[in-house]
Amino acid sequence: MESILPLSVRGKLPTPVTKAAPPRADSAEDELQGGSPRSVGAAYQALPVTGDSIITHNYTPAQPVLDADELEKEELEARINKVTVVSAGETGFSRQHRGGLAASIQWGQLGPPSLGRVIEDYKEKLQLRTDHHMGYPYNLDFDYGPLEGLQKYCINNLGDPFIESNYGVHSREFEIGVLQWFARLWEIEADDFWGYITNCGTEGNLHGILVGRETLPDGILYASRETHYSVFKAARMYRMDAVKVGTLDSGEIDYDELRAQLAANASRPAIINVNIGTTVKGAVDDLDRVLDILKETGYAEDRFFIHCDGALFGMMIPFVKRAPMVTFKKPIGSISVSGHKFVGSPVPCGVVMTRLRYIKGVSSDVEYLNSRDATIMGSRNGHAPIYMWYTFTRKGYEGLRKDVEKCLRNAHLLKSMLEKAGVKVMLNELSSTVVFERPREEAFVRKWQLACEGDIAHVVVMPNITIRKLETFVQELVESRARVAVSEALRLAEAARERHGDDEEE
Amino acid sequence: MESILPLSVRGKLPTPVTKAAPPRADSAEDELQGGSPRSVGAAYQALPVTGDSIITHNYTPAQPVLDADELEKEELEARINKVTVVSAGETGFSRQHRGGLAASIQWGQLGPPSLGRVIEDYKEKLQLRTDHHMGYPYNLDFDYGPLEGLQKYCINNLGDPFIESNYGVHSREFEIGVLQWFARLWEIEADDFWGYITNCGTEGNLHGILVGRETLPDGILYASRETHYSVFKAARMYRMDAVKVGTLDSGEIDYDELRAQLAANASRPAIINVNIGTTVKGAVDDLDRVLDILKETGYAEDRFFIHCDGALFGMMIPFVKRAPMVTFKKPIGSISVSGHKFVGSPVPCGVVMTRLRYIKGVSSDVEYLNSRDATIMGSRNGHAPIYMWYTFTRKGYEGLRKDVEKCLRNAHLLKSMLEKAGVKVMLNELSSTVVFERPREEAFVRKWQLACEGDIAHVVVMPNITIRKLETFVQELVESRARVAVSEALRLAEAARERHGDDEEE
Repeated sequence: MESILPLSVRGKLPTPVTKAAPPRADSAEDELQGGSPRSVGAAYQALPVTGDSIITHNYTPAQPVLDADELEKEELEARINKVTVVSAGETGFSRQHRGGLAASIQWGQLGPPSLGRVIEDYKEKLQLRTDHHMGYPYNLDFDYGPLEGLQKYCINNLGDPFIESNYGVHSREFEIGVLQWFARLWEIEADDFWGYITNCGTEGNLHGILVGRETLPDGILYASRETHYSVFKAARMYRMDAVKVGTLDSGEIDYDELRAQLAANASRPAIINVNIGTTVKGAVDDLDRVLDILKETGYAEDRFFIHCDGALFGMMIPFVKRAPMVTFKKPIGSISVSGHKFVGSPVPCGVVMTRLRYIKGVSSDVEYLNSRDATIMGSRNGHAPIYMWYTFTRKGYEGLRKDVEKCLRNAHLLKSMLEKAGVKVMLNELSSTVVFERPREEAFVRKWQLACEGDIAHVVVMPNITIRKLETFVQELVESRARVAVSEALRLAEAARERHGDDEEE
Repeated sequence: MESILPLSVRGKLPTPVTKAAPPRADSAEDELQGGSPRSVGAAYQALPVTGDSIITHNYTPAQPVLDADELEKEELEARINKVTVVSAGETGFSRQHRGGLAASIQWGQLGPPSLGRVIEDYKEKLQLRTDHHMGYPYNLDFDYGPLEGLQKYCINNLGDPFIESNYGVHSREFEIGVLQWFARLWEIEADDFWGYITNCGTEGNLHGILVGRETLPDGILYASRETHYSVFKAARMYRMDAVKVGTLDSGEIDYDELRAQLAANASRPAIINVNIGTTVKGAVDDLDRVLDILKETGYAEDRFFIHCDGALFGMMIPFVKRAPMVTFKKPIGSISVSGHKFVGSPVPCGVVMTRLRYIKGVSSDVEYLNSRDATIMGSRNGHAPIYMWYTFTRKGYEGLRKDVEKCLRNAHLLKSMLEKAGVKVMLNELSSTVVFERPREEAFVRKWQLACEGDIAHVVVMPNITIRKLETFVQELVESRARVAVSEALRLAEAARERHGDDEEE
């Protein structure tokens, strides 16, 4: 073709040299041997792998794209799928691009593991890590076997779920089925809600806060200190004034402080994020109490907008007694939950739901995006709704209720076991998030993939956490603590020996 | 468990009644029989299924979540996976929630198709629609067979790709491998870039514009009228002033108007969206010319930020001769491309890349989100990077070059075929997007899933569009046009008959 030429004519491409990655263990067992102290950071937030810089770079080992132009087809297949012995000469390989490209790539110290048996090795690693996961609120127990063939299709629910685009390879029927299921759960009539299946809880929060801001453009955002960081991210993105309210020991919002802040800013509307289970402690802000405070401080219903962040616990709370009810029968504006947390899914996903009248308000402004699309994203993953539909269809409300029951029961069991073993522990009444002293062996934290914040760590007991797994975990935790204790005790002796010499030698 | 009780205690749940959906054909063949005129809307934007309301609701048929609590396990399996004959009595079914729940659901006129053989039926529909897809820039020709087993795992690259969270079930190594591949393509050193794999082109645009705004907080956003709507969505979300610049016939930005606007607002910095292939016409804004205009109008490099929206064509342009080069060697700020378009993927995805120094600037502000996460999303789909890694590894630059060559060749062929058939057609030199008169039979538009805007439609020639498919398409288009022509001609005769009576009867 005349209009095409090989990349080579573009001249020499740059030569990305990847910095040496610190040696990383690939198996959880190996990780227990190695591991170094790491800086303390917020849970669920990015932790620099090294140094104090907020953004470090390229220290995470890469799996470089293999060189299809250089390798024969069979050799390429073998490298992707099967065991390949990589000779030493290949490790810091350079290459010539076929077709005359002069660029050469030095992949530096990345070395052999990046070349052989890539996919099979990776699957093994995934299995191992899945087996040893305790820290994040992800239900890793799912079986979507019958859906596997769907990966052949590019399923995309672009735009609004209720308004069709011409792209036919979508799953809107499943998406709307799932949304109606949630509408029933959250008590809103089919004609009154609007929502969609999101990419994650963050997208739901970004959407809820945006709808709040569009509804009350001059509103101030209120959220507790222990709120998921995406809510404050939204405030920054949307150029909103935000008030960070303190928290009680439980992790709930400090109601007195909220009242004082609302009273002090009574001249402006309020957009309030209510946590249905905080990220770290699983604390549930009392929605009814927040509504009472709004009334006390003189906010009429058209002067506040409440977004409920129920990432994990929003899916569990309908099945828990004594929990404050989250329902659209109360004057809330929106709810967001995750689909890959309590439900379980291969891909992150979630649901956001709001009142149709807010979306109509947003969309009636024609200049709003030159678009009738009120989602945050344009293209949307069409597989996610099918996963959720499938789980809800198979489990039903009753199956989910049993899952919640099991999680809360096992969370109480874990709490009791840790207490018996002398570990300081906390469990909010309505939660399956067990908070305890941060283990001091970093290798242990990594093996069990514990999310940590400051001095605390947590285990989120999900349906895939069995009693047997709890046994192993507690046993290893106690052993880890013993190792640390012995090591510290011996260090005292060592220090004494250094200061005073050894008794025996005297 | 004491702390749990069945949903029933919550009282009666609402009874969502789904409105009657207009009858919808499930096969493309059927669609050709039916179909009604639809309102004209912008391509890639949500089209109301009925009426003029911007947001309509629940007219899309739902696939309701089946009733796991009500059905026996075997029956449920059968309904999900196999053919089930649904009796008439079941179609408007009501139910009692097991465990005492009194709520009953009326699924109204949704009827039998929602119950039987759900997944298998759906797969057939997907295959049919995939076979008849021409309108959107999605490469539906991919085979990720060897990766199928990965769906067992919840792979989540939460947060920054370069900074690890403790969640071990991730694919950061593949993500960074893919990013390095793009860094090479776009000529930026490994130490100088930052980026991540997004959920779609929109997320890339939202990110690029956000980085631009954070870098130049007082900046005005400039983008052409034919820019993807997500760019103006970003301006609205981020509370930025935006200038919509006119376009040339080709779809390129009107350079003279851009110059005049920049000159008129010279006191404020400029954030410019440059289209590397517009959505509808595939027009490529001339980056070099935009840079010249900035220089002419006195903008120093620290007073502008250019985001390149290369959703589709950003992946193709490196392999096309005479195209303006998109490279970080020029003073651009960020590039966004989609992964499910030219590359092809079961899920929407994309890549955004920017300069590390911008991200450092953004992240040095500790109040920025209370977070070190500079992505838009929190949880991120960890499967997407593996799809991209796999395709790049299998095809190499050379394979992609051949794909581009094939697409451009077939686009030219389609243009010639349409011209021969008397259809008005336009094809930008650097594009595989063939623009032509909008077919007037809506059923034809729907069968081939053409994206339309006003009076024009387009076919985006992707690697899965074969010559044979073009033959079928052109033949059916000509037949469709003939039907319309005959029908209009006969209508004239009919009108004449009504006005004057029939000659024969006179």
